[in-house]
Amino acid sequence: MSTIENTNAAADAEKSKSALKKEQKKAEKDAKKAAFKAEKQVQPQAKKVEKVEEDDSATSGDNFGKAPLVQSQTREGKVFTRVEDLTIEKDTQKVLIRARVHGSRLQGANLCFLTLRDTLFTVQGVLAKNASNSKSMVKFAGSITKESIVDVQGTISKVPKPIESCSQKDVELHITSIFVVSEAHIIPLQLEDLSRPIHILEEQDKVIAKLSEELKNTSLNEKQKEELEKKKSEASKYVEVSQDKRLDNRVLDLRVPAHQAIFKLQSAVGLLFREYLVGRDFVEIHSPKMISSASESGASVFKLGYFDTHAFLAQSPQFYKQMAICADMERVFEIGPVFRAENSFTHRHLTEFVGLDIEMTFREHYHEVLDELDNLMTSIFEGLETRFKKEIDIISQQYGYEPFKWTRPSPRFTFDQAAAFLKEIGEEVVDNDINTSQEKRLGKIIKEKYGVDFYIIDKFYRTARPFYTMPDPNNVLLANAYDLFMRGEEICSGAQRIHDAVMLEESAKNHGINIQSIQAYIDAFKFGASPHAGGGVGLERVVMLYMGLGNIRKTSLFPRDPRRIEP
Amino acid sequence: MSTIENTNAAADAEKSKSALKKEQKKAEKDAKKAAFKAEKQVQPQAKKVEKVEEDDSATSGDNFGKAPLVQSQTREGKVFTRVEDLTIEKDTQKVLIRARVHGSRLQGANLCFLTLRDTLFTVQGVLAKNASNSKSMVKFAGSITKESIVDVQGTISKVPKPIESCSQKDVELHITSIFVVSEAHIIPLQLEDLSRPIHILEEQDKVIAKLSEELKNTSLNEKQKEELEKKKSEASKYVEVSQDKRLDNRVLDLRVPAHQAIFKLQSAVGLLFREYLVGRDFVEIHSPKMISSASESGASVFKLGYFDTHAFLAQSPQFYKQMAICADMERVFEIGPVFRAENSFTHRHLTEFVGLDIEMTFREHYHEVLDELDNLMTSIFEGLETRFKKEIDIISQQYGYEPFKWTRPSPRFTFDQAAAFLKEIGEEVVDNDINTSQEKRLGKIIKEKYGVDFYIIDKFYRTARPFYTMPDPNNVLLANAYDLFMRGEEICSGAQRIHDAVMLEESAKNHGINIQSIQAYIDAFKFGASPHAGGGVGLERVVMLYMGLGNIRKTSLFPRDPRRIEP
Repeated sequence: MSTIENTNAAADAEKSKSALKKEQKKAEKDAKKAAFKAEKQVQPQAKKVEKVEEDDSATSGDNFGKAPLVQSQTREGKVFTRVEDLTIEKDTQKVLIRARVHGSRLQGANLCFLTLRDTLFTVQGVLAKNASNSKSMVKFAGSITKESIVDVQGTISKVPKPIESCSQKDVELHITSIFVVSEAHIIPLQLEDLSRPIHILEEQDKVIAKLSEELKNTSLNEKQKEELEKKKSEASKYVEVSQDKRLDNRVLDLRVPAHQAIFKLQSAVGLLFREYLVGRDFVEIHSPKMISSASESGASVFKLGYFDTHAFLAQSPQFYKQMAICADMERVFEIGPVFRAENSFTHRHLTEFVGLDIEMTFREHYHEVLDELDNLMTSIFEGLETRFKKEIDIISQQYGYEPFKWTRPSPRFTFDQAAAFLKEIGEEVVDNDINTSQEKRLGKIIKEKYGVDFYIIDKFYRTARPFYTMPDPNNVLLANAYDLFMRGEEICSGAQRIHDAVMLEESAKNHGINIQSIQAYIDAFKFGASPHAGGGVGLERVVMLYMGLGNIRKTSLFPRDPRRIEP
Repeated sequence: MSTIENTNAAADAEKSKSALKKEQKKAEKDAKKAAFKAEKQVQPQAKKVEKVEEDDSATSGDNFGKAPLVQSQTREGKVFTRVEDLTIEKDTQKVLIRARVHGSRLQGANLCFLTLRDTLFTVQGVLAKNASNSKSMVKFAGSITKESIVDVQGTISKVPKPIESCSQKDVELHITSIFVVSEAHIIPLQLEDLSRPIHILEEQDKVIAKLSEELKNTSLNEKQKEELEKKKSEASKYVEVSQDKRLDNRVLDLRVPAHQAIFKLQSAVGLLFREYLVGRDFVEIHSPKMISSASESGASVFKLGYFDTHAFLAQSPQFYKQMAICADMERVFEIGPVFRAENSFTHRHLTEFVGLDIEMTFREHYHEVLDELDNLMTSIFEGLETRFKKEIDIISQQYGYEPFKWTRPSPRFTFDQAAAFLKEIGEEVVDNDINTSQEKRLGKIIKEKYGVDFYIIDKFYRTARPFYTMPDPNNVLLANAYDLFMRGEEICSGAQRIHDAVMLEESAKNHGINIQSIQAYIDAFKFGASPHAGGGVGLERVVMLYMGLGNIRKTSLFPRDPRRIEP
């Protein structure tokens, strides 16, 4: 992962070396052509007309050119076939497709190969000069910029040898017409570079690192040095695009198959979350994001102007989902943005992320809620592996994938048990809290001992939890509070909440909170409140950790951090 | 509707008159009791011990009192029965319920009737003094404040005559134990007042208005005047709670059955929206709400501090859902908050609401998308009436309900056709735009002519639409733009968007927009973009208009307007 995270000089180059080479070749070709054209132009005008058959300068014809802007002029009900449906069963059929020009390659003046992409799928298009297809058409096809969208008609044709470079390996499309629906500018990043598997880049990094190490050897002679430098230069075959560069060009970066699949998986997590909860009689709520006062102490908050006063962006729906409980809604969930003005630049923090929140009443014990959370998460994992295997496969082709392991129920430990695991390997647990790197180590220990990537830690110390957390009934130092972990990173924090107004107000005071600023929240408990507990899951974290992607910016559509507010 | 919208002096009274009367009676009783107690206290201490059997001053016992704070001490797996399941089939069974004390009535010292409420359902509890139930217990039960939460054990008992005041009419609960789980303060608003059917209030308003009119008659003599004043005072039986007062006490207001049902219906609309779209291969996205520049001209925008710079709150996910289209996501939807800093105080504007947005590519004509939107909305209506009838019924008990009429497909008119309808009834359409009251009138015309409450108006004039709207191919004055209406009010605005970068930039310039501020958006179209269209539906409006509730604050959990940012 780290290889593409790190920016380096190479990563700043906007095109891969192979692409640059291609361009060079093209430039040479163009020069030759220009010379040929110049030669032609000295011929008298009359002769040119005679030679119209051989001229390739027309940019449109009956079966090629720029299509008029689709402005909804007509609705003829044309039937378009998806590239993924171009299979051997359709051999010899005529089809119409709309696709992007993923790549093109002119072979002389009479033949052009096109790779046509339609979301995740590619097919080879072949355009050969013949009675209907002019030389101009071939030339035109070869000149279409990458990523342009085209409407292509053609005949599906079985190929004798699989086309390894396309998703549709058994057929190609013999093009009979091609019109550009939307023309792309020259793209600043190549899809090949954006979608290159990280194992290839990691391999390249290793080789380069090894050669760099060898070059440090002071006993090398000039010739040996030269040799190594040459080898190193040859090894730097692939451009590594930095995460920042990717995000600067997010629209292109998102066209990468793995990234398309990441956001299908993100959508799937939301879907599975809701499916489970709706099946368990939860009601979806939408709480306000603009609130009158910074809701919770600690985490920083964004402030905004609100007519002649000001407001804040909610750091979580915490207070409001609890107020919904006070309003007898019993079981509520919310999927919505959460805002944190924390100045952190880690692989797992964003200033805006999607919170999957639940809150529910219970009868006797908050473990009734924790059991529900456990079932909820494992239902999501189950749903992903059974219903979204295709997306997981596509992501793993670029990023690799160590299958996510879980059990039902999930292993559950107290904080003290977890701390003991860490002490066993010599880790010192300070202030009854586990830091991020210790969490990672703990994840490894639990994976080794129990074979799972998902587990729960319960009974955190009160000092580590917010004021509204219910203390443990048997140990004043502890709280009825838990965290859920995936691959050694926290994805959900939750607890039983204090449902007694007097106790709640006292606890807030002890935490130095200005009661007036949270009066409406405190008051909600004054008219009777059921015991309740809940938790908040970070959507981007779930996707990142399930797939092991290493950077939360990969699982946020247009991520926000302290330095990034665009695009 | 208007009756409870209008604030009036009466509405400011915090309790209904009947409640006040009750309190007066209670005060009288208390005074009598105090006198009795005082009498008892002159008796010597020893005698008191002897008379322990007849004493009713104990506030706890084996089978009554305040339960310890539920702090998750134990998990015995006690079985709680829901009030809605207390039916005649369970006659003679012993059950344990957790419910709110909706009301209580002591009948002498040996009998107490309780109305116990569990979300939408109520049952009558009867606590009689007997060998196990002490006088203290009866007294204690009668003293429990309304809205307190209690754990009650008892035996279900068939009643000879239906109990009309409860949802469980055929049984009552013979109480054997009662413990307060959460004690409520005296509530500032009575649930009876908050849940009174509007037709009763409207009737009362009519009678009072009529009497007020009669009182204006100058020929009345003093006696007649007095008579009328008395009648008027008697007619003002019910407190009308203003919308503002309700929102100030939102947690109580939300406990009203109709309001519980409104938010179940809101949840249902979201569910049906997603179900339809997921079934049609749409992907759910989450676009950033903090954006670098005020996205669209016109509508006002909230500004916030963002580290050492500033940002704005998204007025819609418009730009981002289009960028997702440019990233080949093809069909996307989003459910998320939308922020509008408009200083409007109407029945249909909020500064924060939930947007149900879709955007999708099409092949030939934006009507492919409009058809999808039409099917989407009618699928929601169908789902509501077939799967959420119970909620609709509960809401209609308080607010009434004129069944929502729709057809599939929905009637569709051009703007010019709609304007012609209005001209027929003498309305003047100015600047090729229809104002809000004309929209209402149009809704009535279309209901009369076509019998529907849902319809589509297409081909609005360009002057009325944002810069990114695709012009009509045949008439430069028109746009490929549409609105969806429910009961004469707009619930969705949409259009084909300009997918050509050059045309888009030009249109933005013509609208006086600073191109630099929307550069990332414009750039997204430079690398090839498919023709696409979409729309944004306001969730709160759909629920308000479907049920005919008349004020959007009723369908927003914690509504926000220029004057309200709390609770």
